[in-house]
Amino acid sequence: MHLNAFLMPAGHHDAAWRHPSSGADRATDVAYYQDLARTAERGRLDSVFFADGVAIRPAPAANVAGGLEPLTLLAALAVVTSRVGLIATASTTFYEPYTLARAFASLDHISGGRAGWNIVTSGTEAEARNFNRDTHLDHAVRYQRAAEFVDVANALWESWEPDAIVFDRDAGVYADPSKIHDVGHTGEHFRVRGPLNVPRSPQGRPLLVQAGSSEDGRAFAARHAEAIFTAQQTLADGQAFYRDVKARAARHGRDPRILPGICPVLGSTEEEAHRLSESLTELQVLDYGLEQLSGMLNVDLSGYPLDGPLPDVLPSEDEINGNKSRFTLVARLARREKLTIRQIIARLGGGRGHRVFAGTPEQVADELEEWHRLGAADGFNIMPPVLPTGLEDFVDHVVPLLQKRGLFRHEYESTTLRGHYGLD
Amino acid sequence: MHLNAFLMPAGHHDAAWRHPSSGADRATDVAYYQDLARTAERGRLDSVFFADGVAIRPAPAANVAGGLEPLTLLAALAVVTSRVGLIATASTTFYEPYTLARAFASLDHISGGRAGWNIVTSGTEAEARNFNRDTHLDHAVRYQRAAEFVDVANALWESWEPDAIVFDRDAGVYADPSKIHDVGHTGEHFRVRGPLNVPRSPQGRPLLVQAGSSEDGRAFAARHAEAIFTAQQTLADGQAFYRDVKARAARHGRDPRILPGICPVLGSTEEEAHRLSESLTELQVLDYGLEQLSGMLNVDLSGYPLDGPLPDVLPSEDEINGNKSRFTLVARLARREKLTIRQIIARLGGGRGHRVFAGTPEQVADELEEWHRLGAADGFNIMPPVLPTGLEDFVDHVVPLLQKRGLFRHEYESTTLRGHYGLD
Ligand SMILES: Cc1cc2nc3c(=O)[nH]c(=O)nc-3n(C[C@H](O)[C@H](O)[C@H](O)COP(=O)(O)O)c2cc1C
Ligand SMILES: Cc1cc2nc3c(=O)[nH]c(=O)nc-3n(C[C@H](O)[C@H](O)[C@H](O)COP(=O)(O)O)c2cc1C
Repeated sequence: MHLNAFLMPAGHHDAAWRHPSSGADRATDVAYYQDLARTAERGRLDSVFFADGVAIRPAPAANVAGGLEPLTLLAALAVVTSRVGLIATASTTFYEPYTLARAFASLDHISGGRAGWNIVTSGTEAEARNFNRDTHLDHAVRYQRAAEFVDVANALWESWEPDAIVFDRDAGVYADPSKIHDVGHTGEHFRVRGPLNVPRSPQGRPLLVQAGSSEDGRAFAARHAEAIFTAQQTLADGQAFYRDVKARAARHGRDPRILPGICPVLGSTEEEAHRLSESLTELQVLDYGLEQLSGMLNVDLSGYPLDGPLPDVLPSEDEINGNKSRFTLVARLARREKLTIRQIIARLGGGRGHRVFAGTPEQVADELEEWHRLGAADGFNIMPPVLPTGLEDFVDHVVPLLQKRGLFRHEYESTTLRGHYGLD
Repeated sequence: MHLNAFLMPAGHHDAAWRHPSSGADRATDVAYYQDLARTAERGRLDSVFFADGVAIRPAPAANVAGGLEPLTLLAALAVVTSRVGLIATASTTFYEPYTLARAFASLDHISGGRAGWNIVTSGTEAEARNFNRDTHLDHAVRYQRAAEFVDVANALWESWEPDAIVFDRDAGVYADPSKIHDVGHTGEHFRVRGPLNVPRSPQGRPLLVQAGSSEDGRAFAARHAEAIFTAQQTLADGQAFYRDVKARAARHGRDPRILPGICPVLGSTEEEAHRLSESLTELQVLDYGLEQLSGMLNVDLSGYPLDGPLPDVLPSEDEINGNKSRFTLVARLARREKLTIRQIIARLGGGRGHRVFAGTPEQVADELEEWHRLGAADGFNIMPPVLPTGLEDFVDHVVPLLQKRGLFRHEYESTTLRGHYGLD
């Protein structure tokens, strides 16, 4: 079983920042994130992961807004840890391949082979407006650009053969130019000559992670991803996604690791866990929740009664140009469970659409074991509701149970991120 | 007097990598750079600095090629140092302002207010070819883009007022949206709405450094730079440059620090210093030197006798689309001293056009004091011929002399980079 810790300043519950034990007041303090990474490493987790967006909109009144940039942050975490993998999100829509390829190659050197890249295409118009555009690129075009982008980045990472550096001081030969190759890429979106200006890194290239579950997202993941983050509400949905993506990938001779997200609300008793859950729900700022939900569904919900249902007519997934799969997940959840708007806000508070599970360490371990055994997961994206405490609880109380059951490593068996995930 | 350590893997002499005491074999080893940064901090230097280019061309047979990316590297240095400033080069021609502004804001947070940005426009066509272009942008257009770029970046760094984060857990108010501003920039080169997604950093923005000395470069520096790196071969040239740039800046009510580069070749006796100089010249790979010189002058010199002069007809500075000021410096040096091509290669080997000075610590301190006293420098960009030894020698033997003469601080008196340079 593989475990990734998805890190944020306050935690994954949207009210976590108001909880007294959250580190929300340390959102720009590198020492805070270093402590979180050390905790993950103490638990022998495969990796830590930071999401990323290139805008804050709308105005961030009621939740942590802004933070550190993931690549610089991970470089600062790399030098105080030695084993845990370090995954940064970066958008193919707003980076240039040369810039991104060298930053990740550099991070892979700095971390001794522990860099990972969560490849996203960016879902919001606010982001486009920070990069010379009035409207967002179409969803389909974003994925086309992403595919070409990854091809270029892969070629850049391959541009130095492993033995290109000769380092013969006596003969005055530093490198063998015949082992450093041009890329010579000319495509629809990019023209890049190469070679990269960073020598080949320990892993050769970062672990490639992907996190979009729409039709285009799955097709992209099947071709390129080595690990996949996904939001799945029910075991049945998780199994269906797992089967579908594994089958698509198999057609390309590939076998990516699939990690659904879970927000584990831990208590030493079931009651304690539920009390934490409820106390977080009580801390929610409803206006904020409504705004988030309106954004996910692309509908202005401010006129609707909080204790009534969603409007009868929602857009179809085709009309969504942002995060298509999250739209569909939320719409299905609301209909299946006949939730009011207030109830949806409470349900999404814990994990923005990811599965939330409140219980004892034993119950959480059971849940993870079940999804793993029944073909819904190769591992999990752990999204603690409150940080740092939720990660500490998970590492101290859930990980030992998984280890005792023979489901999770006792010690790292590899020095690289790709090694932790059993890839070469 | 201000002192910046210009760091490279092997050192500034182009044959340094062949010297047994250079760290050229550790070009991608973060621990090596951490040691260098600690040495600079031990010497109470204002800052360390990394140059940057976004290509390696032509094929890197005879010198260290490739290395770590400066922003990730500096983040990894920030967390093992506490005072020394950290300056990264980044190109306005190939970055987007939003991406760059947030990376530097993040570095400023990670370092507790020690980030600096060396603003360059990039000089080579090889770089353009890694970024979707067949030819380089015109020199003048590059500087126009640079000016607009810096305006946007400054606006993004200003977009969070210092007290924007309210952090009232009880009331559920994280930030005051009226203190987080859109940038709303619409210009020739960029459209950026903002605000930045990183809260205001300790320095507000990084120290702005500039390093191009052409007419356009000086005009840009006068408006934007807080510190200026420059290559000046003679005291008279240094004085003229200093006077000119200070006067231009004064017209904008500004007073940037001017730091000419110097490559100090140190020995405990004069003879020892000259022996080191000569041994480095002997290690030069002539083909490499010829290629570099051809590039600087935009003339293919491979057909010319090494022991003869430069061709009579060189391009004029107008025709140079790369580094205009370096072209002029080299052409003038060759004519003034009637050097053969072989002699020029030897002379440029030490500092690629920067002043090279071989002598005892006493003599180097005299030289620095003279330039400082006679109005050619507010400080110096120290470019050790061989690293790490050349920096250790400078810190252990020259810095104490400057301190004894009352020219240089004994202890840091500030915690921020801008503070070290006496700016607010
Ligand atoms: C666990 C997880 C993390 C994600 N992190 C990010 C992120 O950091 N930035 C981002 O722009 N999108 C993120 N996404 C969204 C997707 O990567 C993708 O861009 C979006 O879902 C649109 O893809 P889709 O329409 O294929 O679902 C994340 C999704 C998941 C499941
Ligand atoms: C000390 C020093 C360091 C420089 N570092 C870089 C660098 O890292 N990257 C770069 O592209 N140019 C660098 N330059 C070059 C200039 O910043 C500038 O781009 C170039 O000189 C062209 O400007 P000019 O034509 O105005 O002289 C450096 C120049 C000096 C003096």
